[in-house]
Amino acid sequence: MDDFFTMRTVTWENDAVRMIDQTALPGRLTYVRYTRPEQVADAIRTMLVRGAPAIGVAAAMGIALSAVRSKERNFPAFIRELESSASMLRGTRPTAVNLFWGIDRVMARARSSGSVREAKEAVAAEVKAMEDEDVDANKRLGRVGSNLVHDGDTILTQCNAGALATVGYGTALGVVRAAVEQGKLVKVIVPETRPALQGARLSAFELSRDGIACTLISDTAVGHMMSLGRVDRVIVGADRITKDGYVFNKIGTYQEAVLAKRHGIPFHSAAPSSTFDLIRNHDQVVIEERGADEVVKIRGKRIAPKGVPVANPAFDMTPPELVTSIVTEKGLITEPFAKNIPLLIS
Amino acid sequence: MDDFFTMRTVTWENDAVRMIDQTALPGRLTYVRYTRPEQVADAIRTMLVRGAPAIGVAAAMGIALSAVRSKERNFPAFIRELESSASMLRGTRPTAVNLFWGIDRVMARARSSGSVREAKEAVAAEVKAMEDEDVDANKRLGRVGSNLVHDGDTILTQCNAGALATVGYGTALGVVRAAVEQGKLVKVIVPETRPALQGARLSAFELSRDGIACTLISDTAVGHMMSLGRVDRVIVGADRITKDGYVFNKIGTYQEAVLAKRHGIPFHSAAPSSTFDLIRNHDQVVIEERGADEVVKIRGKRIAPKGVPVANPAFDMTPPELVTSIVTEKGLITEPFAKNIPLLIS
Repeated sequence: MDDFFTMRTVTWENDAVRMIDQTALPGRLTYVRYTRPEQVADAIRTMLVRGAPAIGVAAAMGIALSAVRSKERNFPAFIRELESSASMLRGTRPTAVNLFWGIDRVMARARSSGSVREAKEAVAAEVKAMEDEDVDANKRLGRVGSNLVHDGDTILTQCNAGALATVGYGTALGVVRAAVEQGKLVKVIVPETRPALQGARLSAFELSRDGIACTLISDTAVGHMMSLGRVDRVIVGADRITKDGYVFNKIGTYQEAVLAKRHGIPFHSAAPSSTFDLIRNHDQVVIEERGADEVVKIRGKRIAPKGVPVANPAFDMTPPELVTSIVTEKGLITEPFAKNIPLLIS
Repeated sequence: MDDFFTMRTVTWENDAVRMIDQTALPGRLTYVRYTRPEQVADAIRTMLVRGAPAIGVAAAMGIALSAVRSKERNFPAFIRELESSASMLRGTRPTAVNLFWGIDRVMARARSSGSVREAKEAVAAEVKAMEDEDVDANKRLGRVGSNLVHDGDTILTQCNAGALATVGYGTALGVVRAAVEQGKLVKVIVPETRPALQGARLSAFELSRDGIACTLISDTAVGHMMSLGRVDRVIVGADRITKDGYVFNKIGTYQEAVLAKRHGIPFHSAAPSSTFDLIRNHDQVVIEERGADEVVKIRGKRIAPKGVPVANPAFDMTPPELVTSIVTEKGLITEPFAKNIPLLIS
């Protein structure tokens, strides 16, 4: 299994950020190289890079670009320059908490340095460490989750919580990879995940590339597949898990959880510590509303009449009573989540 | 309200069938004119015409084309010619029962005629009557259902059960039209309905054209909209309602019904008598599986990697315990459906 999807989605290389252009997939696997934080902010906004863990590391690297390229010699002015980049990056997307986690972590590292020169080195080392830690956390998380997966299971996922949503290996699909590495026969059902089609474009791409059996369905077929007994388990990622145990994830997750409950199918969210929000309750989280074009056009082709009003929420919220367990790199969290999340995650 | 969507989706005109090419919508409103039953069969197969009531009338007209153009003078041979067309038309799509209803009705009319000449006239008159009856039934059904709709309601639908799914006026959207005609303020939430996008392409088109407020969403956003309290009522059409009260309708309907139940939202199916199957129970119905291309390509653009396996069920089954009531032109049917369906429908 050494040939598992080993490209890094986001990587720090020679004082630049290199990342896969996910908008070009599955047609072309191409990379972009950025040297300015504005480019990273744009890439996050347009979903050239997406997936909560991936955008957390990408945003941190955006600040690192600001640091290593700064011409400022005065330390407080240097920090203000970084803070300006941080503010821009914070404004890109509101829901995934990893974005803020990544920015806060690298800013703290910069502030704790003694000089501009020390800060530049420290920040570059920090984002490289975050990059490596992300892959490590996902592999550990994968091993934790793989114990839930039985030989022969068919797993329903949502969106892409795979290698492409992280630096590498993936969260929900990391669990699948770990189960496959253990020799278990696993199949994945991938809903295409409109509007941005991360299931069809990204999950189907990385699973096919790794030789893991997958079947693509329309988002409308989720309930029907469950009613036919074709789903053994649901495993999704998360963009934010609040301290009271609510899972914010890609739109469509909530309805999968409701359907799983009706059919007695276990529902798991897989996410690293950096996805937990230990400060906010569920009612304090902003769900991003994206533009109408994502819905009325697909790959540039118009599919709806001009001028039709659109609602395009990018995420939804799954309440703890629909969640069987949460898979993290620190272990499995079961209910009561509001008590057990703070015990395991700090 | 005289300017309500008045085009007929399917019409019998000068011994030919004229129909709206629904594959060209919402971009262009164009008509095709067919003179041969093979053309009608192709149009049904490719979903140039779709919607259970519309394909029922279209298939009947396919046989009428065979009849009026027949050069046969021997009556038994003439009937055999029609039976051959009927057999071809029966093979186009398996799930909507209206197809078989339409074929059976016009074949019975032909068989009961005394001569080829009489049969030709009788069959042409019969399909014209079926066309008019469809619009009448939908208007009556609309009035029955409109009593369920409150002023200010937001109604979630699925697919297109509108004028375009019938000869005219629509079933689920016929209920909406009737409520609007009564002066009620009604909004419709339209899920795009992948894979064939009948919500985005057709329902959004005909509602916009009639000035009825609608909001387009991705299929993934159904549960989220309900959780925000934005849906007062679900009204969908049906492709077949079995004598034991199971509603077969466009894929995605079942999950709307499960979500409606969780949120305490009434769920109604609106369908004319011709959609009821009084012979079969739910476990005897074939759910059509369509080709992978509908899922991996959208309007000709590939959205998934080549070779990825696809499941593409075109319909699903909603059990009676999730259905609040069924709206028909003969009145409202409530539970116990298995008892009340045969009482009202014959």
